[in-house]
Amino acid sequence: MAVNLPRPDPAQLYPVRGVELGTAMAGVRKQGRRDVMVMRLAAGTRVAGVFTRNRFCAAPVVLAKKHLANRVRALVVNTGNANAGTGKEGIDRAYFVCKALAAGIGAKPSEILPFSTGVIMEPLPAERIAAALPAAVADLREGNWLAAAEAIMTTDTVPKAVSAKVRLARGDATVTGIAKGGGMIHPDMATLLGFVATDAGIAPAALRRMVRAVADRSFNCVTVDGDTSTNDSFMLIATGKGPTASSATDLRKLGDAVTQVAQRLAQALVRDGEGATKFVAVKVERGRSVAECRKVAFSIAHSPLVKTAFFASDPNLGRILAAIGYAGVRDLDTDRVDLFLDEVAVAGGGGRLASYSEELALQAMRKPEFTVRVVLHRGRAEATVWTCDFSYDYVKINAEYRT
Amino acid sequence: MAVNLPRPDPAQLYPVRGVELGTAMAGVRKQGRRDVMVMRLAAGTRVAGVFTRNRFCAAPVVLAKKHLANRVRALVVNTGNANAGTGKEGIDRAYFVCKALAAGIGAKPSEILPFSTGVIMEPLPAERIAAALPAAVADLREGNWLAAAEAIMTTDTVPKAVSAKVRLARGDATVTGIAKGGGMIHPDMATLLGFVATDAGIAPAALRRMVRAVADRSFNCVTVDGDTSTNDSFMLIATGKGPTASSATDLRKLGDAVTQVAQRLAQALVRDGEGATKFVAVKVERGRSVAECRKVAFSIAHSPLVKTAFFASDPNLGRILAAIGYAGVRDLDTDRVDLFLDEVAVAGGGGRLASYSEELALQAMRKPEFTVRVVLHRGRAEATVWTCDFSYDYVKINAEYRT
Repeated sequence: MAVNLPRPDPAQLYPVRGVELGTAMAGVRKQGRRDVMVMRLAAGTRVAGVFTRNRFCAAPVVLAKKHLANRVRALVVNTGNANAGTGKEGIDRAYFVCKALAAGIGAKPSEILPFSTGVIMEPLPAERIAAALPAAVADLREGNWLAAAEAIMTTDTVPKAVSAKVRLARGDATVTGIAKGGGMIHPDMATLLGFVATDAGIAPAALRRMVRAVADRSFNCVTVDGDTSTNDSFMLIATGKGPTASSATDLRKLGDAVTQVAQRLAQALVRDGEGATKFVAVKVERGRSVAECRKVAFSIAHSPLVKTAFFASDPNLGRILAAIGYAGVRDLDTDRVDLFLDEVAVAGGGGRLASYSEELALQAMRKPEFTVRVVLHRGRAEATVWTCDFSYDYVKINAEYRT
Repeated sequence: MAVNLPRPDPAQLYPVRGVELGTAMAGVRKQGRRDVMVMRLAAGTRVAGVFTRNRFCAAPVVLAKKHLANRVRALVVNTGNANAGTGKEGIDRAYFVCKALAAGIGAKPSEILPFSTGVIMEPLPAERIAAALPAAVADLREGNWLAAAEAIMTTDTVPKAVSAKVRLARGDATVTGIAKGGGMIHPDMATLLGFVATDAGIAPAALRRMVRAVADRSFNCVTVDGDTSTNDSFMLIATGKGPTASSATDLRKLGDAVTQVAQRLAQALVRDGEGATKFVAVKVERGRSVAECRKVAFSIAHSPLVKTAFFASDPNLGRILAAIGYAGVRDLDTDRVDLFLDEVAVAGGGGRLASYSEELALQAMRKPEFTVRVVLHRGRAEATVWTCDFSYDYVKINAEYRT
């Protein structure tokens, strides 16, 4: 089902010194699957993160935000239950899990970051999760990235894990990350969990800047259905067991490597979007601001009419023009907007070009990946977002998810 | 397919003195269907309207806005082709149709309002439409409202026509209207055409105020998929052949009658939304402003995850909480939000209520019509929007519409 998304090759996933991962079966929602993952971090590790902006943020998000102020010794993630919309009881249950893991690894509960994903408004089976933690701790190994990626999946069909190496002044640093998506992939961290770790050493302030900049160029540029979830979190972890990055050049290089890993993870979420059959980049160029370009790009990427046309490989490109028109750019001169489908020039001067060839447009849209490019001709800013089509299976998966 | 939407009873559709309607077959997109409708207005008729705010507004919208400044003698509507995204050539073709009708009824082209609906970015077959106008003019009769409603349909499965009578100081006035919807039903006049006429006499300024107030309480409160189209228009026509409404009381009474007709038409569009199997009212109460209540209501009504849950009769109410949370009400205290499904109290205090019964929630959601009620507890404003679910057939209809 996923669009051009092979299963990660374990040989290409580099361990990150100072990060051990372990998984176990807690039976959170289904029996017989690994649904709990623990990530233990070496002493001295720095963690920074960005979280959902949904006002109903889940209990684990509340705790993780709070615990980020302390040194962090471990992360614990469960799938199957999001512990969201669960009120104060939910906070207690998330804390119970932190306490159980803290006891197991000799840390304080406030040094544990909890994460949950799955159905919402159901009580978290915290005792079942706690009971599985000893097995997860016993399983902790630096080479467990792929198993960890599998343990955090919900409706994902393929685990997402990506690695890169980057040469810094004091040696090579490793960057490895995992993510889970499913539906509701959207900017502002919608139902996604992303964990990217490096063995480089980074000062806390630089790490916090980096996680925001990376998120804006990766996870905040993807959308499946526009819904923003209650639990989404992207954590950037720097263990400092490898080379320190402190010069501007090293920080830029490391930031680029982390961005590359995060972008590949974010794109993998879209490729594996619920029911996705097409992977589409929407690039908006020559706008007055990045914000304006993003507005237009997301207006296209969120339109159910456009997305069903993608599914049908139907070059009903007027739907794209309509989405540009209602994106909320008030003084947009539609006569100056150019629209391309890959290299095929489609529209300009407020309408379809005389040179337009439906046959060529069809050829482009029939491919599993293509680019919708919009040129606004009003500035120098640009933005790209990645999305997928809207298929029968999207409805099927989301209509049947709970039952 | 449509949810509780019987075919209008012709006996319940009252003619409006001064409005004659005629239809004909032009073969715009399909042969053998009535796809052109003419509405001739008696001398002295006033017309006011609201139009799509899409920046790519269609050629007929550009002309209709311009011609509204003049006295209006007739409206001409074609289905099958929206004449949108067609640039300057599109304007010429819309004007060609106005000119042809003007010649046929002895008026000026600038006294004709053109409307088009259907596929976009295809050249309007203006000559075929013009060729069919004599037959439409020959067909003009005051009793043709139902035939007119049928002639403007696109993917609608049921014609929409509603009538009411209202007692004014100087006698009874009639209000009759027709509308067409299909997909893309959304505030800001998305792919909908609505024409409501009354024989009451109303001063131009009062009529302009009335059409805006009515739109805000009817067509701007409905959504199928959130897309806003290029062509949507709602016209309010007052022929003055019946009693004049000039007192505040009469204007209020007439406004209420027009609102009632427009609301029933708007709701009919949702009931007949593409693939709709459920009709859902989303009512948000006790917000600080109507704008804030609408924001929350549309956030719920636009969420594909919520809408697929409606389709599945799945009380996955956490999806509704999530949509409330990302509606953009920045200082929303989620602990104070109450959520009801019809009379079933679902959530409060940031989570599911202890008293919540999934069985009762299921019973409510299995009905073809129900209400989602959200109480924000932060003010006195409220707003209601109407929407439908998201089904397999929505994808099917929109994936196959062009082919």
